[in-house]
Amino acid sequence: MKAVLMSGLGGIEFLHIGEHPDPVMKEDELLVRVRATALNRADLLQRRGKHPPPKGVPDILGLEMAGEVASVGRACEGWAVGDRVCALLPGGGYAERVSIPAGLAMRIPEPLSFEQAAAIPEVFLTAYQNLFNVARLAPGETVLVHAGGSGVGTAAIQLIREAGGSSLVTAGSQEKIARCVALGARSGWNYKDGPFAPWVAEQSGGRGVDIVLDFVGAPYFEQNLQSLAVDGRMVVVGTMGGADVERFSLRALMSKRLQIAGAGLRSMDTARKVALTRAFSEFALPRFADGRIVPIVDSVFDWNDVGDAHLRMESNANVGKIVLRVTG
Amino acid sequence: MKAVLMSGLGGIEFLHIGEHPDPVMKEDELLVRVRATALNRADLLQRRGKHPPPKGVPDILGLEMAGEVASVGRACEGWAVGDRVCALLPGGGYAERVSIPAGLAMRIPEPLSFEQAAAIPEVFLTAYQNLFNVARLAPGETVLVHAGGSGVGTAAIQLIREAGGSSLVTAGSQEKIARCVALGARSGWNYKDGPFAPWVAEQSGGRGVDIVLDFVGAPYFEQNLQSLAVDGRMVVVGTMGGADVERFSLRALMSKRLQIAGAGLRSMDTARKVALTRAFSEFALPRFADGRIVPIVDSVFDWNDVGDAHLRMESNANVGKIVLRVTG
Repeated sequence: MKAVLMSGLGGIEFLHIGEHPDPVMKEDELLVRVRATALNRADLLQRRGKHPPPKGVPDILGLEMAGEVASVGRACEGWAVGDRVCALLPGGGYAERVSIPAGLAMRIPEPLSFEQAAAIPEVFLTAYQNLFNVARLAPGETVLVHAGGSGVGTAAIQLIREAGGSSLVTAGSQEKIARCVALGARSGWNYKDGPFAPWVAEQSGGRGVDIVLDFVGAPYFEQNLQSLAVDGRMVVVGTMGGADVERFSLRALMSKRLQIAGAGLRSMDTARKVALTRAFSEFALPRFADGRIVPIVDSVFDWNDVGDAHLRMESNANVGKIVLRVTG
Repeated sequence: MKAVLMSGLGGIEFLHIGEHPDPVMKEDELLVRVRATALNRADLLQRRGKHPPPKGVPDILGLEMAGEVASVGRACEGWAVGDRVCALLPGGGYAERVSIPAGLAMRIPEPLSFEQAAAIPEVFLTAYQNLFNVARLAPGETVLVHAGGSGVGTAAIQLIREAGGSSLVTAGSQEKIARCVALGARSGWNYKDGPFAPWVAEQSGGRGVDIVLDFVGAPYFEQNLQSLAVDGRMVVVGTMGGADVERFSLRALMSKRLQIAGAGLRSMDTARKVALTRAFSEFALPRFADGRIVPIVDSVFDWNDVGDAHLRMESNANVGKIVLRVTG
C-alpha cells in the first residue's frame, strides 16, 4: 500500500509518499481503507524524532482516520464490508490501509463526510475523557478552556455546552474567540492582551472556575491554580509552553481542595480506549447525526501536500482540525 | 460551662480551664455533654495563632468529641437524651458542652468507651474521605501511607485493609512500623534510613503504588511522584515538612496520567460533612461494633493536664490519638 513515509527526522522535506507493507489484520480487527486522516501536534513532534511511537506501533504517522471497512475479522460481530467508520489509532493513519480493533471503531453518522469524521476521534475523545472521566464535569459547572480555537478546544466547548456546563476560553485572536463563542463559549480572552487570571476572576464573580483544561503547561500553572474555585480540577492535556513548573505551593492545593491531573490517550491500553470509545459514542454520535455537535474542520489537504498541512499547524493558524484526504 | 481557654497565643502555659458561655442550640442540632475530646495538629497551630478558626466558629480548641446527648433540637428525628454520640466539630471540643448539627452525630458502637469514640471522627473521616472519595481506592490497589503511626495513618491502614487494598507505610521507628503491620500494613520503611522511593519500587516490583496518602508535603513531593504507578493518585492531607515545592515536572504527571489532590475536612460545608458522615458510618460503625476496626488511642489525659497532652503530640511520640477526658 501507499503511505506517508519519512526519509529522515526533522523538517517537512523528509515526508514523502511511498510503498509500505500492508497491515496484518487479527481476528478481532477490521481492515479499513483509509479515506481521510487528521493532524495532531504529536505528528509534528514525531516527525522531528521527539515523540517516538510506543513499542509495537507502526512508525507511520497518524493518530486517527476515517474510511470504509475493507475486511472483517472472524471474531468481529456487527460489522460489514463497506461500513463507514472512524477511529483513534496508536499510529499508522497516514496510509491507504490500517487494521483496528473492532471495539475502537465508531460508525460515522450519515450526514458526515470522511473528512469531517477524520476530525472527530482524537480531539473529541480527548476532550470527553478529560472533562467527564478525569475532571468529572457536572451540569452547571464552568470550565476554563485554554487554546479554545484548537481541535480539542472546539470539541470541548461543544461537549461542555451539551453537558449543561458553561465555558470560558482563551485564544490568540478575536477571530478565534468569535468562533468559540459561536460554538457555545460564554466569553473569551485574547491571551495577547495580558494575564487571564484577573479576567477569569471578573467573569466568575471572584469565585473561579470548576475546571481548567490546559494545553500550555508551566507558564499558565500558577494562574490556573488562582483561577480555580474551591474543589476545582485542573487537567493538563499538553505542555506547549513548557513542562517545568518552578514553584508550586501545596498550600493553595489544600486550602481550595484542588485536584491536578495529567492525561493523554496515547498511553492508554486498548481495553480502556474501547470503554472510552463506547461511552463517547453513546453520548456524541446521536448529536453528530442531528447536528447538535459538529466536527470542526479547519482545512483539508490532499495527502500529497502533507508538508503544507504540517506547516499550517506549526504556524498556529488553524481553528479546528487539519485533515488529509487520502487519495488513491 | 467550663472549657479550656487561652489567655494568649503561644506555648502551653496559656492553656487553662475557665468559664465560658454555654453554646446555643439550634432546632436541627443536638446539645451534647462532652465526655472526651482528642488532639489534632491543628490545635497546636491554633494555640500558636497560626491556624485561626473559620468565621462563626467558637475559638475554643477541639475538632472532635464524644459524649451524651443532653438536649434534642425540635427538628431532630431519631435522637434521645442520653444517646452516646461522637462527631467532627469545626471547633469547641475542649469544653463541657457543644451543640452539633444532628446530621454530624455518629452513634457510638456499644463496645467503645467515650475515650475510644473521641479518637474516631477526625482521623477516620479524613482517611475515609481521601481514600474513597478523593483517591477512589479500588479493591486490590496498593496505598503508600506516610506517617503510618499517626492518627490518620493508623485509621487509613485499617480502612484500606477492610476495603480489600494493601498498604505500605513509612514511619520514624521500628516500633511504629510494627504497630502498623499489626493493623494490616504489608510492610514499612523507617524514613530515618534514607529515601523511601527505592524501597517502594522494590516492594511493588518496579510498578509503583496506586495511591499515596501524604502528610509531609514538599520534601516528599518528588519521591511521591516517582513512587506512583500509571494512573496513580497522590492526596496531600498535610504539609508538616513544608508546602513549597521547588520543581515540578508536568511531564511526569502526563506520562503516567497522575492525579494530585489537596484535601482537608475543615473547610467543607456542613452538607458535605453530613454526606461524608453518613457514608462513613455505614461502612465503619458495624466494623467498630464487632472489632474489625479499632480506634487507636495512644494515651488519655485528664483535661486538667491538657498542656502535657499537647507536649506529647509536639514530640511526635504518639502512635494513634491523644485523648482528653473531660471531667466534671
